[in-house]
Amino acid sequence: MKNYVVGVDLGGTKISTALSDLEGKIINQTTIPTDAHEGEVPVLNRIINSIEKVVNDSAVSYEDIKGIGIGSPGPLDAKQGIIITTPNLPFKNFNLVKPISEKFGVPVFLDNDANVAAIGEFMFGAGKGAENIVFFTVSTGVGGGAILNGKVYRGHTSNALEIGHMTVAPHGPRCNCGNVGCVEATSSGTAIAKRAHEALSTKVETSLRKYENVTSYEVFVEAAAGDPVAKDIIDDAMNYLGIAVANAVSIFDPEYVIIGGGVSKAGDVVFDTVRKVVNKRCFKSMAESVKIVPAGLGTDAGLIGAVALALLETQDK
Amino acid sequence: MKNYVVGVDLGGTKISTALSDLEGKIINQTTIPTDAHEGEVPVLNRIINSIEKVVNDSAVSYEDIKGIGIGSPGPLDAKQGIIITTPNLPFKNFNLVKPISEKFGVPVFLDNDANVAAIGEFMFGAGKGAENIVFFTVSTGVGGGAILNGKVYRGHTSNALEIGHMTVAPHGPRCNCGNVGCVEATSSGTAIAKRAHEALSTKVETSLRKYENVTSYEVFVEAAAGDPVAKDIIDDAMNYLGIAVANAVSIFDPEYVIIGGGVSKAGDVVFDTVRKVVNKRCFKSMAESVKIVPAGLGTDAGLIGAVALALLETQDK
Repeated sequence: MKNYVVGVDLGGTKISTALSDLEGKIINQTTIPTDAHEGEVPVLNRIINSIEKVVNDSAVSYEDIKGIGIGSPGPLDAKQGIIITTPNLPFKNFNLVKPISEKFGVPVFLDNDANVAAIGEFMFGAGKGAENIVFFTVSTGVGGGAILNGKVYRGHTSNALEIGHMTVAPHGPRCNCGNVGCVEATSSGTAIAKRAHEALSTKVETSLRKYENVTSYEVFVEAAAGDPVAKDIIDDAMNYLGIAVANAVSIFDPEYVIIGGGVSKAGDVVFDTVRKVVNKRCFKSMAESVKIVPAGLGTDAGLIGAVALALLETQDK
Repeated sequence: MKNYVVGVDLGGTKISTALSDLEGKIINQTTIPTDAHEGEVPVLNRIINSIEKVVNDSAVSYEDIKGIGIGSPGPLDAKQGIIITTPNLPFKNFNLVKPISEKFGVPVFLDNDANVAAIGEFMFGAGKGAENIVFFTVSTGVGGGAILNGKVYRGHTSNALEIGHMTVAPHGPRCNCGNVGCVEATSSGTAIAKRAHEALSTKVETSLRKYENVTSYEVFVEAAAGDPVAKDIIDDAMNYLGIAVANAVSIFDPEYVIIGGGVSKAGDVVFDTVRKVVNKRCFKSMAESVKIVPAGLGTDAGLIGAVALALLETQDK
């Protein structure tokens, strides 16, 4: 009986791998360094070794494995199983799925971090049991994923849910992507820190001056403590995040919008503002129906998401 | 053999009904006045009569009918088959599907105009053969629908794709919905005419003054003829429409964005501007992959869409 799956959370510094049963209960897990500098084939072999380790250290045989899910930074082509390129990994147009699938004789599924996190929240996190979920991750950048009618939605070229690059401020700040006014340029951790540094380069009075190094974290802290400069920056950033979420609500009419990532950890100041903007900008019926909640999975979200990817893609198979 | 479907295009002034084969070839069709003032049951009976007419006037028997699709203005609950309320029809929280389904003993499907148009374009129009399509209709208002992974996407409360109420100008004009800066408030025919009337109420020189009644049509005509005031209004409106389409591209990564409705009839000035904004604001791979095209179905789009709804929902059944 094929009663197990394997999840692999592939990152620039470490590879975490887990063997799980069909309910998502982790039987066995391991974490090894990625050693990305060694190149494509050595990293591929380390992934294979980590899969062998979690299986061999258990009483499970390879015949019992239903599938393997891999979460990786993108851009990648999920349909083809190819990592196109990504800053902290050696792979360039590299088919990661084929050699692993051939090695173990089981179906292998590759997807990007944001989709994998969305699937994890759908199967085991804050959106458990819902059919339609939009997931935002707000940290250094802004990314997302969506579960629609119970399935991951990937789009025509596997690049759907680039919600970080939704325009929310047509004449707003320039984004790294080249566009202006993307929500990533108004509301990411990077954007918040940048606005703080701009303020600090003027003569304005602000309690942010007491820090040697100001990141978005300090801006949230000083905003909460009542510093008007920090408060303005946070209000602005969260208002634009609210517009992005409101647009997602008008477009997807989802049951849940789940917000994860470092910035979401600031808690109420994020969720209260976002909910207020959604109430103001969306149709009443949709604003009242959608639940806007923090991500439910913690530090292991990537690994649990990879397990969830394997489970979702092998369902009814 | 169930080799036929019926489509009903329910409007405030007329009801158009067609009998079609499974390839969407219309066998027989009829159009009768809605006579909405007569109330719920008389209009229901007129719909039933129109269905009986197209079937009885053919050689097809009721046993050969696979399903009936009905397109109606919304808001409605597609899952329950209920018209919630709509300005030009008598129905209030009225289940339209149940009595018709009971009468004919076949499955009946109800959906809103925009979804039905999207399905029509997907099965028989500009998006034939594609899996992922976003449809915009830009006329008095701005509405939309989406086919995702080959299926209509309706969302949690059947209200998905309210793309007309996507915020594209956070500090822009007030929309009828109460929000500010919706694309319906910047780019609909109504919004264009409103901007023109605002200009006419000032002392600015514009060739628009030669008309007794200025609608968006005259603004497009004078913009094309080189009037700078009209040109400004159109540029602005189409630029914001472009932002809405660009956001839809970043979110859905669709194969097609299809634009229909009265405003889209202005042609190149609409599509050139929208494509330019998409190229500027979206990731290159997605901007290059998406085809932004005019709707392929003409004046019968509502009827063909209703037939397509019945065909799509009874597929493989």
